Amino acid sequence: MHRILSHHLPLHVGATVRIAGWVHRRRLFKSVAFLIVRDATGLAQVVVTDPATRAELEKLTEETVVEVVGTATSNATAPAGVEITDPTVRPLGPPAVPPPFDLYRPTLTASLPTQLDHAPTALRHPTRSAALRVSAAAVAGFRAALDARDFVEIHTPKVVSSSTESGANVFALDWFGRPAYLAQSPQFYKQLMVGVFERVYEVGPVFRAEPHDTVRHLAQYTSLDVELGFVADHRDVMVVLRDTLAAMLATVAERAGGALATLGVRVPAVLAQIPAVHFSEALTIAGAPADEPDLAPAHERALGEWARREHGSDFLFVTGYPMAKRPFYTHPDPARPAYSNGFDLLFRGLELVTGGQRLHRHADYLAALEARGESVEPYAGYLDAFRHGMPPHGGFAIGLERFVARLVGAANVREVTAFPRDLHRLTP
Amino acid sequence: MHRILSHHLPLHVGATVRIAGWVHRRRLFKSVAFLIVRDATGLAQVVVTDPATRAELEKLTEETVVEVVGTATSNATAPAGVEITDPTVRPLGPPAVPPPFDLYRPTLTASLPTQLDHAPTALRHPTRSAALRVSAAAVAGFRAALDARDFVEIHTPKVVSSSTESGANVFALDWFGRPAYLAQSPQFYKQLMVGVFERVYEVGPVFRAEPHDTVRHLAQYTSLDVELGFVADHRDVMVVLRDTLAAMLATVAERAGGALATLGVRVPAVLAQIPAVHFSEALTIAGAPADEPDLAPAHERALGEWARREHGSDFLFVTGYPMAKRPFYTHPDPARPAYSNGFDLLFRGLELVTGGQRLHRHADYLAALEARGESVEPYAGYLDAFRHGMPPHGGFAIGLERFVARLVGAANVREVTAFPRDLHRLTP
Repeated sequence: MHRILSHHLPLHVGATVRIAGWVHRRRLFKSVAFLIVRDATGLAQVVVTDPATRAELEKLTEETVVEVVGTATSNATAPAGVEITDPTVRPLGPPAVPPPFDLYRPTLTASLPTQLDHAPTALRHPTRSAALRVSAAAVAGFRAALDARDFVEIHTPKVVSSSTESGANVFALDWFGRPAYLAQSPQFYKQLMVGVFERVYEVGPVFRAEPHDTVRHLAQYTSLDVELGFVADHRDVMVVLRDTLAAMLATVAERAGGALATLGVRVPAVLAQIPAVHFSEALTIAGAPADEPDLAPAHERALGEWARREHGSDFLFVTGYPMAKRPFYTHPDPARPAYSNGFDLLFRGLELVTGGQRLHRHADYLAALEARGESVEPYAGYLDAFRHGMPPHGGFAIGLERFVARLVGAANVREVTAFPRDLHRLTP
Repeated sequence: MHRILSHHLPLHVGATVRIAGWVHRRRLFKSVAFLIVRDATGLAQVVVTDPATRAELEKLTEETVVEVVGTATSNATAPAGVEITDPTVRPLGPPAVPPPFDLYRPTLTASLPTQLDHAPTALRHPTRSAALRVSAAAVAGFRAALDARDFVEIHTPKVVSSSTESGANVFALDWFGRPAYLAQSPQFYKQLMVGVFERVYEVGPVFRAEPHDTVRHLAQYTSLDVELGFVADHRDVMVVLRDTLAAMLATVAERAGGALATLGVRVPAVLAQIPAVHFSEALTIAGAPADEPDLAPAHERALGEWARREHGSDFLFVTGYPMAKRPFYTHPDPARPAYSNGFDLLFRGLELVTGGQRLHRHADYLAALEARGESVEPYAGYLDAFRHGMPPHGGFAIGLERFVARLVGAANVREVTAFPRDLHRLTP
């Protein structure tokens, strides 16, 4: 007899079925015992009245893997209206050592550090696994949107010979006796690949040796990177970002509806046109001095509230960040060269995406580096490609963990990351 | 006027169109000049008779990015039967420095090292980009097959506190002052996540400090990893692998038909049941001594020819590899404990996939490590999860570059990798 998954039980009422999963909980009453089995799709209730089976059940600690054969029986009070009666229960391994927290309670009561120390079991809690299901669906939506728009998926090196974006915050390693660094982003590679495919994306790990410990930074995170050529300016990039975000959220709603319900979350609407304000206007809205070169977290929060209030939008573009605060490959606004064709997208008052138009002429790169007093040498291999014909282009990068955290209302990105890496954490 | 892509030209015959791309080639005859423009979808022929435009064209070196506005005109001898006449040609950047090889020739004549040194331009050659399109389609097929079978995509740490599979061939790095290593595979993490989702997959980079320089090894490659729980034994894993491979090839045929045509490649059939031979039988077929502990490349080639000849299959499973040659987490064959429930899949006589059933009981892990004289300590965090209830499980890993190389007939995996990393190569 084939094993069925718990969410298919209602299809088998009256039949003998086989299920398998983990002992989620046991409730041992005087005349009856309930065994709750958890599998990938949910929970199944098993009713035990036979004394021998009950004696077996008493030995099956929580998290023991078991197989149950019994009759699928209607019962309005059971999960999904079906329970398993007259069961035989067989362990598929030795009795489990229970984890240091109860997985059957509605929320995990253990502190986040304890959960992270015991991630392999903590992630079994429905709230923790639900966030990872949301994450998987979001990435599927990201790819689907871009595949439909003729983007090609690429895989780029994660070990590079020089720090890719700045000298700071890189992890150094020994590459067959030569110094090397973990890539902080696929920025340069995705730009180079615009020369090949015009439109590319990559989903992969990036590494930041962040020396500070915050709720929104990880030392390894998953970056959703996009780059496209033949743009007029950054606004063409923003259109692709808007459509990609909408697809991500639609796919989360479609594929991870159960996970959203577990988390009590609804996906926000993405307006056909996400509101956009210029950086200088953003300072005014946020009540910041007109000469501030960047937006502080408090300013971002104020802008998020403004977007919600004035436009009914959870998302807000801030365009035209000052060139001084953007990386050297940023394209300036031709009309106001102190400002850039770079943008951020705020999601409920938190920076979620950074993007913009990039320089595409070799001479402009040389001038930009010289103006910053930076040497050309570390970028030589990258810059060389711009001598061989590159179209106007731009792109963006979405931090996956930050997106999911904001979407599900998690205060710390570590809550939505399976095995986070940071200043203090290198295990499990 | 919106830009159209070259492959859409036939839809616009008689109309004024705008195209954009790279100067692929110019052919300057006495009374007429042809400009071949390459974009993401192919080539477009532009016919220039106007002397002023021709004078412009003479300055537009190969690889210069241009925009052309003209009339789409039927011509049976042009690519796809359409060319652009009466054009105006506008460069979108300065004239390009031509790369050190001609991209317009049917094959790249430069040596592979030269191509790799100039990857950003070499990859623009239709044969090189075609292989990467095949790669992208293969990964899309991989994910689609697994999504349809309720697998959940995961993202796991690429930096770990101890070497994940063996002490050899790891890259060491400095993690905020602590020793750390690049992950050689997501093996342990995907197993742990079986405890959460039952079925998981990951597409991501893995790192092997391979000290030897071969045509089939890279120091970073893309691993397509799968793991599933509640299996009877390795044969349940082989069924999933067979279906996944079939989906990968079907998606390549569907999404990358043009790339296959460019490469002159057809996707092989995957039989409903891929032939499988036990290791001991494989030795006999390959003419190897019966006490060989492993298959040498020559044996694999002989087995590939045998599978082709006897079964008409490009694929062959070899099951039951000796335990001595498999990693400690391998599940033995209960009937013949010197052999494993591990398998390899050969693709045209080359090992493409390694997989098998894993141990799932904590005590079995301790015994396996002890029998090998290995310390438990480096694996403590990983092993601990097996005390908390893990189902029988197994999985496999496909090396993406090796799969694509074998499929398109590339002799060296570097031919199908955008920016390879190896013993000698850390740039571009």
